[in-house]
Amino acid sequence: MKKTVAEIAAFVGGEVQGNPGLELQSLANLKNAGPADLAFADEKFYAEVPASRAGCILLERNPFPDRTVIVVRAPKLAMARAATLFVEPDTSGPAIHPTAVIEPGAVIGRGTRVGAGCYIGRGVRIGNDTQLYPRVVVYAGAEIGNRVTVHAGAVIGADGFGFVWDGERYVKFPQLGGVIIEDDVEIGANTCIDRGSLGATIIRRGAKLDNLVQIGHNVEVGEHAVIAAQTGVAGSSIIGARSLIGGQVGIADHVTVDAGSILGAQAGVPSGKHIRGGGLLWGTPARPIKELLAQQAALARLPRFLKELRKKTPSSSENEKGS
Amino acid sequence: MKKTVAEIAAFVGGEVQGNPGLELQSLANLKNAGPADLAFADEKFYAEVPASRAGCILLERNPFPDRTVIVVRAPKLAMARAATLFVEPDTSGPAIHPTAVIEPGAVIGRGTRVGAGCYIGRGVRIGNDTQLYPRVVVYAGAEIGNRVTVHAGAVIGADGFGFVWDGERYVKFPQLGGVIIEDDVEIGANTCIDRGSLGATIIRRGAKLDNLVQIGHNVEVGEHAVIAAQTGVAGSSIIGARSLIGGQVGIADHVTVDAGSILGAQAGVPSGKHIRGGGLLWGTPARPIKELLAQQAALARLPRFLKELRKKTPSSSENEKGS
Amino acid sequence: MKKTVAEIAAFVGGEVQGNPGLELQSLANLKNAGPADLAFADEKFYAEVPASRAGCILLERNPFPDRTVIVVRAPKLAMARAATLFVEPDTSGPAIHPTAVIEPGAVIGRGTRVGAGCYIGRGVRIGNDTQLYPRVVVYAGAEIGNRVTVHAGAVIGADGFGFVWDGERYVKFPQLGGVIIEDDVEIGANTCIDRGSLGATIIRRGAKLDNLVQIGHNVEVGEHAVIAAQTGVAGSSIIGARSLIGGQVGIADHVTVDAGSILGAQAGVPSGKHIRGGGLLWGTPARPIKELLAQQAALARLPRFLKELRKKTPSSSENEKGS
Repeated sequence: MKKTVAEIAAFVGGEVQGNPGLELQSLANLKNAGPADLAFADEKFYAEVPASRAGCILLERNPFPDRTVIVVRAPKLAMARAATLFVEPDTSGPAIHPTAVIEPGAVIGRGTRVGAGCYIGRGVRIGNDTQLYPRVVVYAGAEIGNRVTVHAGAVIGADGFGFVWDGERYVKFPQLGGVIIEDDVEIGANTCIDRGSLGATIIRRGAKLDNLVQIGHNVEVGEHAVIAAQTGVAGSSIIGARSLIGGQVGIADHVTVDAGSILGAQAGVPSGKHIRGGGLLWGTPARPIKELLAQQAALARLPRFLKELRKKTPSSSENEKGS
Repeated sequence: MKKTVAEIAAFVGGEVQGNPGLELQSLANLKNAGPADLAFADEKFYAEVPASRAGCILLERNPFPDRTVIVVRAPKLAMARAATLFVEPDTSGPAIHPTAVIEPGAVIGRGTRVGAGCYIGRGVRIGNDTQLYPRVVVYAGAEIGNRVTVHAGAVIGADGFGFVWDGERYVKFPQLGGVIIEDDVEIGANTCIDRGSLGATIIRRGAKLDNLVQIGHNVEVGEHAVIAAQTGVAGSSIIGARSLIGGQVGIADHVTVDAGSILGAQAGVPSGKHIRGGGLLWGTPARPIKELLAQQAALARLPRFLKELRKKTPSSSENEKGS
Repeated sequence: MKKTVAEIAAFVGGEVQGNPGLELQSLANLKNAGPADLAFADEKFYAEVPASRAGCILLERNPFPDRTVIVVRAPKLAMARAATLFVEPDTSGPAIHPTAVIEPGAVIGRGTRVGAGCYIGRGVRIGNDTQLYPRVVVYAGAEIGNRVTVHAGAVIGADGFGFVWDGERYVKFPQLGGVIIEDDVEIGANTCIDRGSLGATIIRRGAKLDNLVQIGHNVEVGEHAVIAAQTGVAGSSIIGARSLIGGQVGIADHVTVDAGSILGAQAGVPSGKHIRGGGLLWGTPARPIKELLAQQAALARLPRFLKELRKKTPSSSENEKGS
């Protein structure tokens, strides 16, 4: 779809400087963009603007008087919004692919697309305008809301991981609970969200989960929480609304992460802990970034410090040997 | 299926206190249970019992004389056992889903169910009463025992990861070995178990693997070992019987983990190490929890300690600058 | 296929000592090999040679005058090469399995095999002699080269993970870029390679990715780079040619890893860092192994050191209490 610069500016709430009648066809990054592409630049990339061949650039302010630009308060957000002008959702082919398996009692809303090879179990309920990419598996009884996106290979509603030792073997603890995916959630490729054991696992409205994420039984992921790839959340933990959880983070069972918390990549939160919001935590066990960096800096000095000390105080050195 | 409290007590070997004729229909946790639900409570949750609407509660002792309870030695285990009274396995539909692909020479035992879109390669042998959820892939030649559960998206028998550099490119080392899953194993969603290179990869009787676990070539997972989500075990390592391996643990190649070992979440075991059983290990490299906690506590004090020291001994501080 | 020892020696460029006419049928490791098997032994396993029943052994030198051996410069490499004499690729059944879904506009080269239940999106281009195992999903527009191997459950070309907060909710940033898998790449089971946001994600010639790996949008993995299982690489990072990346490594966004770098298992590289090649790095944040080991050794001594110090200098101990 072609759009003029003026149309784009009106849509994103920005101001044209340059040629409002220029027609654009697509989006690209500064570096690869051509004369029919829209691009955007944050302030720190302004040095790359002169060399860009982009037809029009979204900017917060305009130091480039000879370019066609749209001045807008949040250029990256405007770029995200403008994308919807150019990219039509692919609605070719049937809404429910003929190779998808829909078990009896499953209900699928209008405008929802179910990709090739998906499996929708008995009694599953899926809302409207949701998209399941190929090979998604939804176990019996799961509930998925409206405008949800689930990428290929994701598994929703498999049994949680719970066993009780009887002295000779493990007896499986019942995994009969539900799994509820609310509206506007996005779930990455090959991500797994287990059903609750007796209660339900809940992914609240607007949460975004990347690829290969593991969500255990009875977990609650809050509204608009963001969880990056390969992170795992164990049973019964609560991830607060609008939290930002980095990649490969491990959150043990029965943890509470307050709303608005930030956990850096590979952080680890031990069982039962309460993470209070308002600041970046990192490391295992997760602690305020400032503490962790001070500890890492001190640790980096420690080998030389101990060596110097040993030179000065031979008795201390002997104590060490005796340990 | 409805069951009376007396029937449940007889089945789990407990003693009824209250109304033995009460009919129950399902299981629930203390909080959500209603009058027709069975619940259980460990001692530390006794404070929640009075507010619960559960029809009957499994308890180790009974301080609630006005409730209908079953007194039993291990309430959680009794709950797990009682679940089998209420939950019938879903045997609707055909045992082998018509969309499953079964290659020539594969043998599938009686009572075994193969879900939608599964792929069973040539020469695969699967025992009796095993359940493969949808979209499981079993490569040619793998062997799966009796009463095994494999969750959706798991891949059993893919090539191990082995290459030899020839000076210009990697040449693939042969990945021709077998993969053997013994009886009563459970394998989580999207978990990968590679075939052996020349020997076999073996998951022994009763082992339980969570979602997104990676088992490399020639690994042996011992009987009744438990491996939580997103853990990886590299080539030729041995996980001893009844080990408990937390989530996101990394076990490098040629490691031996003794029977009964416990590795905390995110622990890392370097190549070739021998982990001796009897106690919880944590951290990377994995070490006894007591050591690790003492080190973490000392590290937390270190920044202030070095700062204080610098104040007192300016010469030491100068040494540091010179480093 | 049967091959004589002489034929094998000629193929791998080695010298027969013993019976050149002996016919072999397969490969095995030293321990399991029988009289019709070829095995190999690196020097450190020579003690196991006498007990082996292998018909012929590949060795770098021959201290076993009564055995049939092939003396060759790199025995493991020779073993890898010899494997191609014994193992024929399975070309039974149709090249494109009837249950695979090939969308309009997809182009699949000659000699390429597409397994059961694969999904090949619109406009995908796949080269020659490539093998897709069952249930691989390739999103629209992805490009896959020649002689590529993709294991079961891998997802190529799913949306990258990018959202912009608008004050009330996340707006999805466009994920319209390409994904290019060059020749001779191997991709493990259930691995995910996201498409670029506006540019492309590229896996260069000869790179090898293990199972459950996550490659984010706009990442470039260099030629002959090796990435072990469960490692994640976040957006726009560059992994240099011939790098060796261990298992469960986390590489944040906008990282540059120089060619020839080595990152130990579970290492973590923070956002924007530049890892210089030539040496093993380990830990989070990743640092030279020598530094890390010195720090770990010092940390192990720290608890006792601080305790001793407290005994000697009570005033210091009081300072600590006051902190």
